Order: sequence, then structure tokens, then C-alpha cells
Amino acid sequence: MEYFFSPKSVAVIGASPNRAKGGNSILRNLITTFKGNIYPVNPKYDIMEGLPCYPSVKKIPGDVDTAIIFVPAREVPQAVSDCADKNIPGVIIESAGFSEIGEEGNELQMQLLKIRRETGIRLWGPNCMGLVDGVKGHVFSFMVPEAIKDGFIPGHLSLIVQSGMLSGGFLMDIVSNRITGINKVCSVGNKIDIEECDLLEYFQSDEQTKVIGLYLESIVNGRRFIELCSKSDKPIVVLKGGKSASGAEAAISHTASLAGNHKIIEGALSQAGVIEARDFKQMVDICRCLSVHPRRPAGLGRVAILTASGGAGIVATDFIEQYKLSLADFNAATKKSLEKLFPDWMPVNNPVDIWPAIEASMGKGLDVYQKSLDSLLADTGVDAILLCGFAGNSKIMLNMAEISDKSRKSGKPIFIWLFGLRDSSFEAQKQAQKNDVLIFQELERAVECLAAVMHQKDKGEVTPMIQKTPSRHVLSADLLAAIDTAHGPLDEHISKKILRAYGIPVVEEEKAKTIEECVQAAGKIGFPLVMKGIFPCAAHKTEMGLVRLNITDEAGAENSFTALMSSMNQKGYVLLQQQIEGKAEIILGMLKDRHFGPAVMMGIGGIMAEIFEQSVFAVAPLSKNDALGLIDRFPAKKILEGFRGGPAIDKNKFAEFLVALGEIGLLHPRIKEIDINPLIVSSAGIVAVDASIILE
Amino acid sequence: MEYFFSPKSVAVIGASPNRAKGGNSILRNLITTFKGNIYPVNPKYDIMEGLPCYPSVKKIPGDVDTAIIFVPAREVPQAVSDCADKNIPGVIIESAGFSEIGEEGNELQMQLLKIRRETGIRLWGPNCMGLVDGVKGHVFSFMVPEAIKDGFIPGHLSLIVQSGMLSGGFLMDIVSNRITGINKVCSVGNKIDIEECDLLEYFQSDEQTKVIGLYLESIVNGRRFIELCSKSDKPIVVLKGGKSASGAEAAISHTASLAGNHKIIEGALSQAGVIEARDFKQMVDICRCLSVHPRRPAGLGRVAILTASGGAGIVATDFIEQYKLSLADFNAATKKSLEKLFPDWMPVNNPVDIWPAIEASMGKGLDVYQKSLDSLLADTGVDAILLCGFAGNSKIMLNMAEISDKSRKSGKPIFIWLFGLRDSSFEAQKQAQKNDVLIFQELERAVECLAAVMHQKDKGEVTPMIQKTPSRHVLSADLLAAIDTAHGPLDEHISKKILRAYGIPVVEEEKAKTIEECVQAAGKIGFPLVMKGIFPCAAHKTEMGLVRLNITDEAGAENSFTALMSSMNQKGYVLLQQQIEGKAEIILGMLKDRHFGPAVMMGIGGIMAEIFEQSVFAVAPLSKNDALGLIDRFPAKKILEGFRGGPAIDKNKFAEFLVALGEIGLLHPRIKEIDINPLIVSSAGIVAVDASIILE
Repeated sequence: MEYFFSPKSVAVIGASPNRAKGGNSILRNLITTFKGNIYPVNPKYDIMEGLPCYPSVKKIPGDVDTAIIFVPAREVPQAVSDCADKNIPGVIIESAGFSEIGEEGNELQMQLLKIRRETGIRLWGPNCMGLVDGVKGHVFSFMVPEAIKDGFIPGHLSLIVQSGMLSGGFLMDIVSNRITGINKVCSVGNKIDIEECDLLEYFQSDEQTKVIGLYLESIVNGRRFIELCSKSDKPIVVLKGGKSASGAEAAISHTASLAGNHKIIEGALSQAGVIEARDFKQMVDICRCLSVHPRRPAGLGRVAILTASGGAGIVATDFIEQYKLSLADFNAATKKSLEKLFPDWMPVNNPVDIWPAIEASMGKGLDVYQKSLDSLLADTGVDAILLCGFAGNSKIMLNMAEISDKSRKSGKPIFIWLFGLRDSSFEAQKQAQKNDVLIFQELERAVECLAAVMHQKDKGEVTPMIQKTPSRHVLSADLLAAIDTAHGPLDEHISKKILRAYGIPVVEEEKAKTIEECVQAAGKIGFPLVMKGIFPCAAHKTEMGLVRLNITDEAGAENSFTALMSSMNQKGYVLLQQQIEGKAEIILGMLKDRHFGPAVMMGIGGIMAEIFEQSVFAVAPLSKNDALGLIDRFPAKKILEGFRGGPAIDKNKFAEFLVALGEIGLLHPRIKEIDINPLIVSSAGIVAVDASIILE
Repeated sequence: MEYFFSPKSVAVIGASPNRAKGGNSILRNLITTFKGNIYPVNPKYDIMEGLPCYPSVKKIPGDVDTAIIFVPAREVPQAVSDCADKNIPGVIIESAGFSEIGEEGNELQMQLLKIRRETGIRLWGPNCMGLVDGVKGHVFSFMVPEAIKDGFIPGHLSLIVQSGMLSGGFLMDIVSNRITGINKVCSVGNKIDIEECDLLEYFQSDEQTKVIGLYLESIVNGRRFIELCSKSDKPIVVLKGGKSASGAEAAISHTASLAGNHKIIEGALSQAGVIEARDFKQMVDICRCLSVHPRRPAGLGRVAILTASGGAGIVATDFIEQYKLSLADFNAATKKSLEKLFPDWMPVNNPVDIWPAIEASMGKGLDVYQKSLDSLLADTGVDAILLCGFAGNSKIMLNMAEISDKSRKSGKPIFIWLFGLRDSSFEAQKQAQKNDVLIFQELERAVECLAAVMHQKDKGEVTPMIQKTPSRHVLSADLLAAIDTAHGPLDEHISKKILRAYGIPVVEEEKAKTIEECVQAAGKIGFPLVMKGIFPCAAHKTEMGLVRLNITDEAGAENSFTALMSSMNQKGYVLLQQQIEGKAEIILGMLKDRHFGPAVMMGIGGIMAEIFEQSVFAVAPLSKNDALGLIDRFPAKKILEGFRGGPAIDKNKFAEFLVALGEIGLLHPRIKEIDINPLIVSSAGIVAVDASIILE
């Protein structure tokens, strides 16, 4: 990928002398920012912006590392062919008019892919804004040169953005707000060849990149993406567009890509240790913080609030709780040293309302902010500091260099919310940026970002995906045959036999086709019983009257058998099951996602399933940690924690069932879905009382 | 209150010639901004800032409408006494050092209240920053004059802020960001006399105020506050500090006020049609939008998105769904007129990705933005427009005057999210402000604010609180006697008799003290039965083994009776109840809040109650609409909507039970709490199967 990121020579196919055109912007941006050889290509001109202009890329003397293509879509295939002939390893196609415009553009895109396959040339785009390097200063894009006249702030954040206008606007917003240092910004467009995974892989080994932020509308290769993220030792933040049903529709018409099931993506991202963002600037804010704190700081997220406004301290405290951080308790030494700064009447609490101390110290030459910070940072019970400050009062100016120094030396993050005069705020932001101090205009954003930093997963916590040794042969030959030959849903009894073979606890049950078998089965299982009529293709047993509960004696069993067989016209058979009384019901499932493959689902069972959308997902294969993480993300996990005086479920054991469900999906390509509904949680543990495996 | 808001003459007690002091800032702010008589008061000086200075307020020739007091706390009582002697109707005490500093300050505050009682003088503060008028330009505050050098943007938003530093900083932030017009900002401090209700009442009749925003740490008089909000025909937005347990602690030490139970406040605010804000600038943003749209615009919240970036359209769509708005479907005429603007290949969808149309129209002199807006606004299926624009490209500059005009003429809100260059954004913001166009820097905020505008309650929807005619006499004499004389929890049977008398359906049940009564009761009720041992002071019947379910015959009833009586040492009695099989369980309750009085609670019953915190509250008396609103806020309301094929519960009937619960609280001051747990929802309707009334 170095030919894209560090070329020695760049050709511009579609360069233009007209300063209103993108083909001119690309050229001028190169002239201003790129130190290597620049070759404008346009058959109509001999010279352009003072450089010799070539009729074709093939006429350029010497090697070309990359070409930026900005000709009308229909001319792009020829241009790419020419580049391949010239042995250019990769091209950035910034022209639009491909799959995003429908059939005709799709056809052109297919032609490009054909050239890619035949020649090995790498294609970036099309329909993208190219690439910008905040450190080298390179702008390989048709952005108007005036937009970036302020120059970049070099930093460690690299962005991958699947949206042309947005990546340009994004960049201009970031550059002009002077608060976020940028390493590389990649606009990937239609992603016909180079896609997020290629760039993610490149950024992994790119020493200058410390944090990676992605805006994605689709994830081309879900499993590879998750694997790369899991292995990443750099924080990754993803904003996924098209989460809602209608958002996904918009995504389809926009970059001709399909947004996956968001619940699966959400689970997969969490499993891979990725932080999910919600909005554009919020994503950049989180990335900005992670580029200063790319590893989780020590401690438990106990925050000291130092505030120039009592009200700000109160609302900050509300946010601290909301974002699952906590208020630090100060130790005696801290209290003592703070008391010296404060007027006598002022009790030392957290939040530390600093205003009375500032007033009390006036004229004494004391820097109350710095002294308070020192005390708080020295307290072993304080893991991070939130400073609520005020811009526009010279008495309480913050010295950003000192704050930065203190944060670095103590290893404790200091986050600042600043409100007040716009110009003073902007000045403070610039000073903060220069000193790697994290500053925010909105209080909630400050706390949200602090939480993102303090809640980072340890890299050791994320287990990379490892394929387990296949074990199809836990199944008997007839079960394997059923899976390999049947279609649609397998019957409940066979489904449960398969699950049981993979170690998932299922209810004790017996088949009965005659009244004698029924009596025998009932005797074996004992009462109370549940009896079900199993009839091919009957998915909704309850609605069809094929489920009978509370059968307490043999006579009842016989009556039910007769009635069930009669309902089924003497076809099918009857299943007798132990009746399990539980405290709660869970739904477990497995389904195959087109982007992520087999995914394991956990949700609330019973009536609440219809009332609360609470299902969580993880992508198979699940490591034990992934499964424990899935349980931890399950909103009703208290069900497993022995509430109402019952014993707790063994989470390690439960995690194994989740791992097994994922493995079944991986081992049996013909299994489309598994639905265990319900899994009953009782004091005796958990047991699947109904289940269905659905084949292709 | 006009002596505070429109005085003809103002005295400054504690005026100072030292420009570094607050007493000088107050004086200079008056000189710069106030056109009436200004009287500095300070015994050490004869003249100050060019004005005659008086040794005491009593020596001022002529009337004084209000005095601003800024002397050390211990001198404040004397100053207030002097003002009363001078017949000044009201004073603004900006000095700190009162209840917020503990015992000593509390004592001073008591002295002030004594003077208030004895003389009738109205007190504003202490520990506050006073009052600012954005239209008249008045600054009655010790804010440094430089902080407001830009001057105000007059507007229709009035703020009430319970935090000194914050109201000043707030104001400087608002003023310097030039995007929010301000009417009046009141900093109320310790609120020993003038509190939020007084100001709320004043703003109701203040023609210049169209929207009221409040930052509150405590609500002094909850019931009056809610009543005023309910009656308000102006939108009210509240940010309540101290929502979390620890936030409430911070609130106590800050302005010495007690934060109420936030769930009750949340319910009461919603009931009163108040919009609850989360953060400071977010609150101002919502208020800014409501000052342009103080009434709910017509329609159902169907939004057309017009965007210069496809990606922005996709993420906007996700937010539209999240904030319970919807994407508009365009009619044929709209599609046709948009198609004319777009290149042929471009399908017309919502979001409308405008960039291809802009490119296609270049050089044709078409204003694609305005033409698209016209089409969208003409569509009867479009209720509002979200425009995602880009600052920094002169080709797509937005004409704010035209946009404003179109919005006003069509009656449809147009909200703008603008990203891009900082300076261009600021310029656009200023233009937008001048034209009453609503513009935002963060996409989510734009959608959130649009939702706040589109989801405003119709003023007719909010029913003011009206005390119902008391009806204690629905109770028999013995029940009344029980309520008026007993202490602690009433037994289950008596509790349910009281509820039944107020119309709440309770399970059919009979008392039995002997085995004969038991058999008779069982015969009357029928099987299956539930039997409970009722023993004085036994709150936890289940844990004590005093509840027996599934009693299916007379023998079982007799056995249970004997066992229960034996468990209770032959004390107490046995209650026989019909066993109700339900689909779901609900908890209803009533409790008395110290700020809001009787409040009605609705929550999920059964195991889920322990897993999901889902209770909602409303303050009694509930109108029928309040009760229906409470049901609507109940997160598990689907339980009542006939899911799983069952019939729906009659919500009007259910609402009556909620109204009745509140009335019981109002009619019986000795009832502290009512707990109906569970109320079973079955196909036959709802029925309370266990209940407890707790007395003082």
C-alpha cells in the first residue's frame, strides 16, 4: 500500500487548467503539498499549471507509483487499463458515476474489476475523495485548495470514511476547528477493491497511526473485519450508518451497499473490542481522546470533579453515574491539603467547587487550580479528573502545558469542559490541542469521552477468533444424515437430540406412537408432564392446540395422547416431557448472517420478549471470553445471578453452551438457524424445553 | 415584580470604586446599560464613577425601586432592613456566604427571612448573579463588563438559573456564540423568597417571553411548580441537576437544597407538558428552537431530508428513527419536480441527496436548494425538513432569508445541520440567527431538537390540576376508623376492601378463622384457590411460608388451613382467594413525596420488576388525560394492548383506577403508601391479588 501512502511520483488523469474544476484542484493540491514528481495527463494540453502535461499516462517518462483518475466514468476503464500497461501498482479513482447510479454504472464497475483481476492493479474508489496525509501534508483529492488553507495539525488519528462529501467536509471541519490532530484520512467510496479491511491492516503496521476511526455504511467482509479489529492493538472507533430499517434503505441507494442486521454488527463490534460511535463529531471526539490515551489508564474510573461552578459539578455528577464512572472518595491527606486552600466554612467534597478557594486566594499569588490538581492527582483513590472551567475570566486561566505535564506524570487523564466566551474558548482549545489536553464544549461529551477512555478493553481481554477443531462426529450417523439431507425445520425431538450431543442441556423426553408407548414413557419420566403433538411442518404447536401442560397422572396422559393423535389425524407422534417449573425464560439462537456468518443470539423469553427488544449477538466462533462478554451484555443477566434467593447459574458452564451453539453453526453449513425457545432457568440450572433447528 | 424587571431607579449597596471588585462591576454595568437613576451606596465615598455616592440607602433623595446588595454576608441583614425602611419593594442580594456555607450562613438567612416577614420586602437571592434583560440591555449583575462587550441578541427566551457562576458563564457563552436570542436571564441563588414559581408566574404574563428554560437543583414547591407548568401556554424546558444519588448529594452541599426523587420529578414534568433537558447547551438549543416554534407544527413528524452528503442522510435517517420521527413518503408531484432537477440516473428518494443535482445544474443558474425546498414544502406528506449542508463551498451557500421565508409561509420547520469550515459555519450561524432559522453543529442535536418541536404537547392536551370533590364516605365507618387510627401497614384484606370501595378491582376473597368458615369460603369461591395466613405485622408472607397456591379441592383447603394456622401459632386468620391465572403482572402504587405530595406509580410486576427499572410516576390529582399519559409512558404498556392474541385492556377504565389511587392519597393524609403487587392482567381484565396500605 506504500504506493498509495508514500508515492514518489503521481499522475493525474483528467487534470484540468480550469480552476473551477476538480481535475485542477487535484493538480494544484499536489503542487502545493507533494514533493515527488507530478504528471498531469490530458491530451488537450502540453503544459498545465507550469508542468509538462502528457496525452496519456503511457507517455510519461519514468515510473509512476500511483495515478489519481478524475475523468468521466465511461472513460475510467480505459484509463485504468493504461495505468496497468504502464505498470502502475495502484490507482485512486475519484470519478463518480458507478454502481451508485444504477445499472449503467454497475456495468462500468464490472469492467474495472475485470481489469483488476487480469492485471493485478489495485483500485481505490471509485466515487471517493481520495487520500490526505496530515503529517506529510499530502492532499490526493479534488477538495478545493482554499478549504485546507489553514494546514493540518499532524496527529495520530487515521480515518476511513465511506462517503465522499462527508470525508471532505469532515476534514475541513476538523482542520478549521484546530482541535484534532490528523494522521491520514481515506475516502473509500464504492470499495470495489481496496476496502476497510485493507486499510485497517495497513494502519495496524503504520507506526504513525495510533487510533483508527471508521465511518462505514457497509462492511464488505464482516468476519475479516472483526478478526482484524480483535487483533488490533490500536483503539478502533466505528460509526455505522444505516442502523435503522429506513437508514439501511438510504445506505443501499447511496453507496450501493447493504447494511447488515445492526444487532449482529453491534454484537460483533463489541466482541472485537471496538467502540461504537453515534454521530460524526462525536466519533472524532472519542478518537481524539483515544489518540492521547490509546491504552486504558489504571484504576476503576473513580473521578474527581474540579469545578468553577457548583451547578456544573452537580450535572457532571449525574453524567458520571449515567456513564458508569464513579465519584472518587478522597483520602485524608487530600482533604487536608485542599482544606488549606479553601475558606474555613467550605467543606471539602467531591465535586470540588473551586470558586470559593479562588476568591479566598486572590492577591496571595496562589495558583489554586494547580495546587488542587496536585492534591487530587496524588490521591490513590482518584483515577481521573474532570475539570469544569470557564473561558473569559483571566483570574482562572488554565495553564494547558502544566495540566498536560501533570496528567502525563501521574498517568491520570484530565478532561476539561470549558464554557464561556467563544473566542477565549477557541484560544483555550488551541492551547489544549498543542499540549495534548482534552477539552470539550459540551459537558456530556466530556464525560462520555472520559468513559470511553476509562472503559477501554485491555488488549488481553479480547480473545482473537480461533477456529475450534471440528467435531461433527459427536453426532450419530442418523442425525448427521438428517442435517445433510433434510430441508426446512427439523422436528423438535431431533433438534434437541442434536443440541444435546453438543452438550446443551435439554429436557428429558420420550416419543410415543402408541398408547402403550405413551404409558411407558410417562412412567419413565414421572409427573407432572407436558405432552406435545409432533406433526411435520407444524411450527406453531401452541396455536394449533398441540401442547398440553400439567398432566398429573396416567389417565390424563392417556386422554391427552388420544386427543393429540386425533388432532393430527393419527399422523405424527406424541412427545412426553418432564414439566419444568422455572423462574425465568431465555431464548438462545444461532443464525447465519450474510456478512458475519454464524452468530449466536441471547434474548429474554416469555411474554417480555415481545415487550422489550433485548437480544444480544456475538459472532462465531466464540471464545470463552466472547461468550462471557455476551452474557455480560445481556440486559436481563440478573436472571442468571440467583435473584429472589435462588442459586446463581454457573456462567462458565452457560458460556460453554453459547460457544457450542456457534460451533454447530460453523460445523454444519446446512444449518441456517437454531431457535431454543424457551430455555428455562430454574434452581436446578438451565434446560432447553423447546428447540428447532432449521436447515437450508 | 416590575420593580425587579423594569425599575426606574436602582441603588447599589456595596458599590466600589475598585475596578477589580464585583461592587464596581455592578455599578459600571448599570451605568452602561440602565437608563434610570443609579445610586451607589458606600459610606466611604462621596462620589463614585462620576455619580454621587450615599452613605446609606436611607439618605438617597427620591424613591428607589430596587437595590442590589453586594456587601459581606454579615452586613446584609442591616442593608435589607435599611431598604425596608426606605420602602424599597424588593432587593437583589448578590452576596454569598449564606446557607451554602453552613450553620453561620444559615443563621444570617433566617434573619433575612424574619425581615421579609416583618416588612413585606421581597428578597431575590442571596448567593446569585442577579438579572439580565437582553431586550432592554439591563445588566443587574457583578459580571465583568468586558464579558458582555458584544451586546445581547434580543430574543424570546427567558432563563431561570439556580447557580451563580453558571448563569454568568451561560450568558457569556450564549452571547458570544451569537446564535440564541435572549429575553431575560434570572440567577436565583438560594431562593429564600423569590423562587422559580414566582418567576414562572411572572413570565406567563410577560409578553416578551415566549419560551422559558430552567436550570434547577431543587424545586421549592413541587405542586405549585407543576400546576404553573400545566397551565402555561408557553413551552417550558427544565434541566434538573442532582438526578443521580451522588448528584443529589452534590446539590445539597451546593445550594443547600434537597433534590427530590428524580423518577417522581420526571413523571411530574412530563405530566405538566414540560420538556426535560439533559445538558446545559442542549437545553439552550431546545429553547432556541421552541422560541421559533412555540406551538407544535401541524402534521405527524414526517421529515424530508435534503442533504449535500449521502452519508449525512444515512446517519440522519438513523437519528430520525431513534427520535421517533419518520421519513416522509413523497407524492407523485414532488417526485416529478425533483426528477427535473436531478440527472437521469438519479432515483428520487428520501433522503434527497442533492449533490448530483447541484453538479448537474452548474452553469445553468438554477438554485437547486431553493427549488428542492419548494417541492418538498409543497408536499402534504412532508411535515418538516432537515437540511444537511456544508459550510465552506460557495457553490452551495444557503440563503437564510429565503429559507426563513419558506418555512414561515409553509408553516413547516426547516432545521439545518451544517458542518465544514469553522469561520463559514459561524457566519452561517449568525445569518441563520438573524432570520430565525434553526441551525446546528451536531447532527444528532438537530434531530433531537426537531423531535422536541414536533412532539410538543398541544396545550389542550395538558389538563390543569383540579381537585376532585372529596369522597371519603365511599368507605364504611370501620374502614375510615382503621385509616384514621391505626399505624403502619393495614392487613391485606382491609387494604383491598379500601381499594375496592374506590373502584379498584380486587380478587374475590373470604376470611376464615375456623375450619368450618374455611370450607364454606372455599365452596363460595370455587377452586383452584390461593390461601394466605394473615398475621399482624407479617409483611413477607411468601418468605414466611404463609402463601399456598394451587389448592384444587376441599381436602387440600382443610389441610392448608390447619397448616397455616399452626404456622401462625393459631393467631391471625386465613384468607381464601380465587387463583387468577394471568398473562402478566403490574405493580401499582401511591406514595407521598415531600415536594410533590401524593404520586401514583406504575411498574412491571413479577421477576422483571427486579431486572428492569421501569417504573413511571404522575402527581395526584391525576386528570383522566394524566392517567392515560402515565399509561403511555409505561415502557411495558404492550402488556395492556392485547398481545399474544388476548383482548386489550380498556385503557380508559384502567386510567380511572390510576386516578382513584391518587385520590385516595389526597383524601387520606394518614395514608403514606399504597402497594398493589401484583395486579394481574388476564383476558378477563385486571385484578389486584395482593395489596398493602401503609399508614403514618
